[in-house]
Amino acid sequence: MSPQSSLASKDSIKVGIIGLSIGSGVRFVPPWAYVAHYPALAKIPEKYQISSILNSTLSSAEAAVNNLSLNTTKPFDSLDKFAQYESNDLVTVSVRVPLHKQLLLPNIESNKNIFSEWPLGASTNEAESILKLVKEKDLKTVIGLQKRKAPAILKIKELISSNKIGRITSVSLSAVSELGGPTRAESLSSYIFESKNGANFFTIPFGHTLDGLLYAVGKKVKSVKANVLTLYKEQQLVDLDSKLVGKVVSKDTVDHISIAGLLTDNTPITIEFRGGSSSRVGNRNLHVEIHGTKGDILYESDSAFSELAPIDLSYSYEGSDGVVKFDNGKDYNATVDNVLGLYESYYEYKDTQGSRQGFEKDGFPTFEDSVILHRLLDRIVESSNTGKEIDVKDIYEF
Amino acid sequence: MSPQSSLASKDSIKVGIIGLSIGSGVRFVPPWAYVAHYPALAKIPEKYQISSILNSTLSSAEAAVNNLSLNTTKPFDSLDKFAQYESNDLVTVSVRVPLHKQLLLPNIESNKNIFSEWPLGASTNEAESILKLVKEKDLKTVIGLQKRKAPAILKIKELISSNKIGRITSVSLSAVSELGGPTRAESLSSYIFESKNGANFFTIPFGHTLDGLLYAVGKKVKSVKANVLTLYKEQQLVDLDSKLVGKVVSKDTVDHISIAGLLTDNTPITIEFRGGSSSRVGNRNLHVEIHGTKGDILYESDSAFSELAPIDLSYSYEGSDGVVKFDNGKDYNATVDNVLGLYESYYEYKDTQGSRQGFEKDGFPTFEDSVILHRLLDRIVESSNTGKEIDVKDIYEF
Repeated sequence: MSPQSSLASKDSIKVGIIGLSIGSGVRFVPPWAYVAHYPALAKIPEKYQISSILNSTLSSAEAAVNNLSLNTTKPFDSLDKFAQYESNDLVTVSVRVPLHKQLLLPNIESNKNIFSEWPLGASTNEAESILKLVKEKDLKTVIGLQKRKAPAILKIKELISSNKIGRITSVSLSAVSELGGPTRAESLSSYIFESKNGANFFTIPFGHTLDGLLYAVGKKVKSVKANVLTLYKEQQLVDLDSKLVGKVVSKDTVDHISIAGLLTDNTPITIEFRGGSSSRVGNRNLHVEIHGTKGDILYESDSAFSELAPIDLSYSYEGSDGVVKFDNGKDYNATVDNVLGLYESYYEYKDTQGSRQGFEKDGFPTFEDSVILHRLLDRIVESSNTGKEIDVKDIYEF
Repeated sequence: MSPQSSLASKDSIKVGIIGLSIGSGVRFVPPWAYVAHYPALAKIPEKYQISSILNSTLSSAEAAVNNLSLNTTKPFDSLDKFAQYESNDLVTVSVRVPLHKQLLLPNIESNKNIFSEWPLGASTNEAESILKLVKEKDLKTVIGLQKRKAPAILKIKELISSNKIGRITSVSLSAVSELGGPTRAESLSSYIFESKNGANFFTIPFGHTLDGLLYAVGKKVKSVKANVLTLYKEQQLVDLDSKLVGKVVSKDTVDHISIAGLLTDNTPITIEFRGGSSSRVGNRNLHVEIHGTKGDILYESDSAFSELAPIDLSYSYEGSDGVVKFDNGKDYNATVDNVLGLYESYYEYKDTQGSRQGFEKDGFPTFEDSVILHRLLDRIVESSNTGKEIDVKDIYEF
């Protein structure tokens, strides 16, 4: 069933997507909009119609329209015309981060509500400037921090907010991702290994994971002491079989984050987020423990990119039936369904206006939530660079 | 077989022990000398004879002599006479830490070599002052950092020094101990919950564990950023069945240590050492991972007091037979045999003089090693108190 099915109602939201291409070729890595946004929207055709697609070429936009049988979707290659297209209620941008601002500006000017992939900007300044513009226009925004919609994260939030594990006494996160390791799949673009682009080991797997964890715990960060390191300044290219191809490429993005932090109420949080191969022994690629006075929570994943991989949650508390393993649901597809959760929530709250989600269970993260995370990441780097504990209490203020 | 067996040779070392009592009573907690030093020495009667025992009362010393059938051991209650007893080559002190200095002074004055339990002093100043005295007298010293003699730790040291896991890229330690949790066994003395005594959660389980880890890795610490917290300022007393007895006692010792540190060569080290009950889900009470460019090491234990509990070591590296589980040996008794390792090594090197072990595989840790650890612990607290990254490179200088 395509989003253009007969289920579309007058209430449905018309979404224009920037960056929904279908691509081709042996080494083709399908874009995120194709992997996540399109299938998410296709699941709720009664709520969303894809009204338009803007790609860098008209042929690419037309190919997507034709290939996906989006019969009522208008293809664009002109940003200005796309921005002025009256059928777009909401504009989703899912392209390289440094392009976000220039692509969003005309759409903001045209009073479109915006769903932007995380990170919002290639820098915090850029994200703040985008936020300022949407606030001036009083637009609704969604930021693609979709881990907040993972069923396991929502379950943890429920366990904690209902006091099942009592007062939280410690939070720890350890993770490893090959993105920051000694080798690089040759199919990967160098884009995510150049820090100026803002989309990298630090902002993406670490940023999503930190956001999801803090959201689940429901506590603001008070201060951080951190080491943010670049241990690998070069990577060896490997082929699809992980064999070295004999080529070394440079990398200036960080690959190791170690944090001793405090949440509000002085709850300690300890983080090791490292680059490298999956460990042959020891914890899985993502391992998070949350301990409370009455219970304990463990969540794990095979991927540090836990915003798009299934999370295995287990917990136990005073009065629970031993150790409970949470069921994500047999049809759960983390890649699609977390993004789906954002669209569902945006639809549910389409007639109300909120500047940020914060730690609320309902609703969806906004550009304000995005800027908070941008600021937090900056403070973590600042602690590393200055050798000082950095107070972050003010990142929540606008 | 008692240490006074016929195996004793002219070469055997005569050791006088301060604090070897046998005690009695329902709530009696046998002293460390009885639990570890005595059985360790009893295993190598050809190398050591217990020449004397100094306790606070003569009856206690006599009871130990009689109960343990130490027929040639002289009981003392006079420190001065004990210190002047010519048959003591080596004096082992295993009593409350604040008593170390006053008990050691006359023995140092009498040119006895000294084996002191860790921590050496109730403060770094005290430890430094003891070190100064033994150096002036050119005495040999052993500090009871016996985790360095755990077979698993020595195996890790071998794996790392022989480059089996390649260049080390990260080190992480997480541990939990009830000593720093919300409850306290009523059998435990308040002594270890009063920071002025210097023997507590921070110095003992954390200190031993940190020392063993750094020794295994074989790298000095370069800098630390730390949070050292006291989350529980009170504890509820519990009985032998872990039932609350309805009494609350105060506690001023720390119970949570979170560190983002760097070893030499900027190898990152991340630590969470927390107080609380064993987790119902998640890692075991001690969980250490060491990752290298060619392999990974995991060591775990059911106790954060890993200096006296068995360590389960597993590792895997390029060319290893999958994941290898290290065999501690079927007769291995961590409590006794780690201390035994110190005595064995002291015997082996009794005719040579070394000021410190450092990270050498052979030999035994000395008061200089002890002072290095005292200084490191102080710097960790300093980082927490000042909110600054603390450079610790100079702690190794004398």
